[in-house]
Amino acid sequence: MEVLETAAALVPLIREKKPLIHHITNYVTINDCANITLAIGASPIMAIDKAEVEEIAAKAAALLLNIGTPTLASIESMLLAGKKANEFGVPVILDPVGAGFTQLRRMAVSNILKTVKLAVIRGNAAEIGFLAGANTNIKGVDSTITGENNDKIARELAAQLGCVVVITGEKDLISAGNKVYCTANGHKMLTQITGTGCMISSLIAAFAAVTDNYLAAALGGVLAMGIAGETAYHSPGGPKGPGTLKVKIFDHISTLTPDTIKGLAKLTNP
Amino acid sequence: MEVLETAAALVPLIREKKPLIHHITNYVTINDCANITLAIGASPIMAIDKAEVEEIAAKAAALLLNIGTPTLASIESMLLAGKKANEFGVPVILDPVGAGFTQLRRMAVSNILKTVKLAVIRGNAAEIGFLAGANTNIKGVDSTITGENNDKIARELAAQLGCVVVITGEKDLISAGNKVYCTANGHKMLTQITGTGCMISSLIAAFAAVTDNYLAAALGGVLAMGIAGETAYHSPGGPKGPGTLKVKIFDHISTLTPDTIKGLAKLTNP
Amino acid sequence: MEVLETAAALVPLIREKKPLIHHITNYVTINDCANITLAIGASPIMAIDKAEVEEIAAKAAALLLNIGTPTLASIESMLLAGKKANEFGVPVILDPVGAGFTQLRRMAVSNILKTVKLAVIRGNAAEIGFLAGANTNIKGVDSTITGENNDKIARELAAQLGCVVVITGEKDLISAGNKVYCTANGHKMLTQITGTGCMISSLIAAFAAVTDNYLAAALGGVLAMGIAGETAYHSPGGPKGPGTLKVKIFDHISTLTPDTIKGLAKLTNP
Repeated sequence: MEVLETAAALVPLIREKKPLIHHITNYVTINDCANITLAIGASPIMAIDKAEVEEIAAKAAALLLNIGTPTLASIESMLLAGKKANEFGVPVILDPVGAGFTQLRRMAVSNILKTVKLAVIRGNAAEIGFLAGANTNIKGVDSTITGENNDKIARELAAQLGCVVVITGEKDLISAGNKVYCTANGHKMLTQITGTGCMISSLIAAFAAVTDNYLAAALGGVLAMGIAGETAYHSPGGPKGPGTLKVKIFDHISTLTPDTIKGLAKLTNP
Repeated sequence: MEVLETAAALVPLIREKKPLIHHITNYVTINDCANITLAIGASPIMAIDKAEVEEIAAKAAALLLNIGTPTLASIESMLLAGKKANEFGVPVILDPVGAGFTQLRRMAVSNILKTVKLAVIRGNAAEIGFLAGANTNIKGVDSTITGENNDKIARELAAQLGCVVVITGEKDLISAGNKVYCTANGHKMLTQITGTGCMISSLIAAFAAVTDNYLAAALGGVLAMGIAGETAYHSPGGPKGPGTLKVKIFDHISTLTPDTIKGLAKLTNP
Repeated sequence: MEVLETAAALVPLIREKKPLIHHITNYVTINDCANITLAIGASPIMAIDKAEVEEIAAKAAALLLNIGTPTLASIESMLLAGKKANEFGVPVILDPVGAGFTQLRRMAVSNILKTVKLAVIRGNAAEIGFLAGANTNIKGVDSTITGENNDKIARELAAQLGCVVVITGEKDLISAGNKVYCTANGHKMLTQITGTGCMISSLIAAFAAVTDNYLAAALGGVLAMGIAGETAYHSPGGPKGPGTLKVKIFDHISTLTPDTIKGLAKLTNP
């Protein structure tokens, strides 16, 4: 598929341009997000104080907003940075961790959606379902909903917001509002590692930093993690568990090539 | 021993129920605590802003309060969440990191002990000694005191507070106020890894989330880390140092079984 | 060289004294900094609230200020802790992450330089160049400038501030104001891991905690990371990527000896 060609071709571009990826993110997986950003070839900067986020967002090549450990202060910083990014044409990626689970997170995503024009939103089925107004049963931050309507939800939310929507899970759905692409890479052991979702969002931000084709960027980020997870799992002397798997993911992200992505992608367009 | 049977039997229950473990914890080991919680089969949520901690504590299956990097704001959140957890019957676990070392930490533990009914407290000998009013010589957060009185301190503090008290160190002491159980699993290299204590507390919270028997829960958490540390250390191609050991601990926690726990526990009841 | 003998001899001293290293540091690499501090044999304490930083700085053997994720609150804490450390003769190490990149970071380093007497400053060429008033082109936090003037900048800034200045990069420059020492250990894959700079600063703090010879301390910290990075990279079954390399660095730091440091140091005094 053409979008796969385009996505794969972004990898050398990231390594050449080393784009600056501004993260306003949670305290749990912040180190992993920085390391995955470096592994794919981009340059992470984590900055959260409202006194500097606008300056940094304006200079960045992409801005990632992740509400994993939200505070009133970090939400204010996200809104300021998001608006500034919009002003400077910097793509904004939203990871709505635990969206809908608390009043604070509902307020955070509601205000971000009202204030900031997004390039890509990536979440699990419960999170994206909440954003779409679906009546979902949310339990914590690693909820999974395996509804038959997920592709419809992704497509309609994307069309409504005018951005790319990604639902990750056992299968991943990606839509810019018309078609829905489905990928099936990865390994179930990834669910035993915190931050694989956050890291996919960081990867999407790195891809989005070097293209205007956010559908290809989203596909690239999703496939990068899925393929690296798979190849890490099956590598010689490979994972005996989630600790080892996590470490090897960084190794495998750092050696991804366009050919690996095109050769191993399990991509369908149902 | 019967309590060992009970503790071991909790492991499959955690994996089946995937209980939500709310952590209000420090910024140093927050990622490790999330990953150990996933590795044992539970579901972590880290949330610290007072705007959402009560809601989350009320929905959680256990609440862990860890004062490793205390701030006035996080202490306030801990008190709010702890009270709400008590109201909803959610067990609260306290990890009093560096208790007694500063005015702020003394205030934190004093207010928590006054305000929140605890299920389990886990600390090193210096920390628990401080809570018991012992005249201890505290140096930083990884102090060790090897007093002969530790079993008396554990028993009496447990009786006084009506909760389970755990002192971890070269040997671990666990008491609900009458007997004192002693475990001797683990490996000295664990002291070269930050957060092994914090991770034991997270494991205890995961066990406490699926039982009312907090003595068994505390024993389960202590043994899980001790045994995983040991088996990881001695595994083929095993640790050449603390970096590798830490990674393998997650692997070995994720494959623990009731039989491993019962077969390898070095448990005495002096 | 004599300074190399002195630096190498500090390793067993750190392991014997287990000095308490107070970190006020960023949220990205805080766990890595704690673990590297433990691996070299010292005892880390991370504390950030202004309600406790003065007490801790006064009791510490060294204080590390790292502005990687600065906030108005953390900068205030750094100034309070730095002044208290000066009062108690505790050496202060500054890691000016991203210095010059934003107004907030310029304010932070300016106030720290005005208020706190430093023992060692360690940064990359862009950061140190900014401190020296050089007209540098700063891009994010992992910028590299390969100017021919770096040795002059290091020497003059050291002389001006009366402290040791370290510029790390492909080659590392260390000066106390007269000579400039140059080390060339390490491996380029280290640039794909977040926090190697932060960890060097933590190591320098651990060395500075057991000597008054801050030049030797700075050299020791720089060589420890460079040599551990090299030996980890080339170890049997060694790194296939940055994830594995990072893990092995902790292993190799924990087994460093004076002889390894003296035998493997690539040190010149141009």
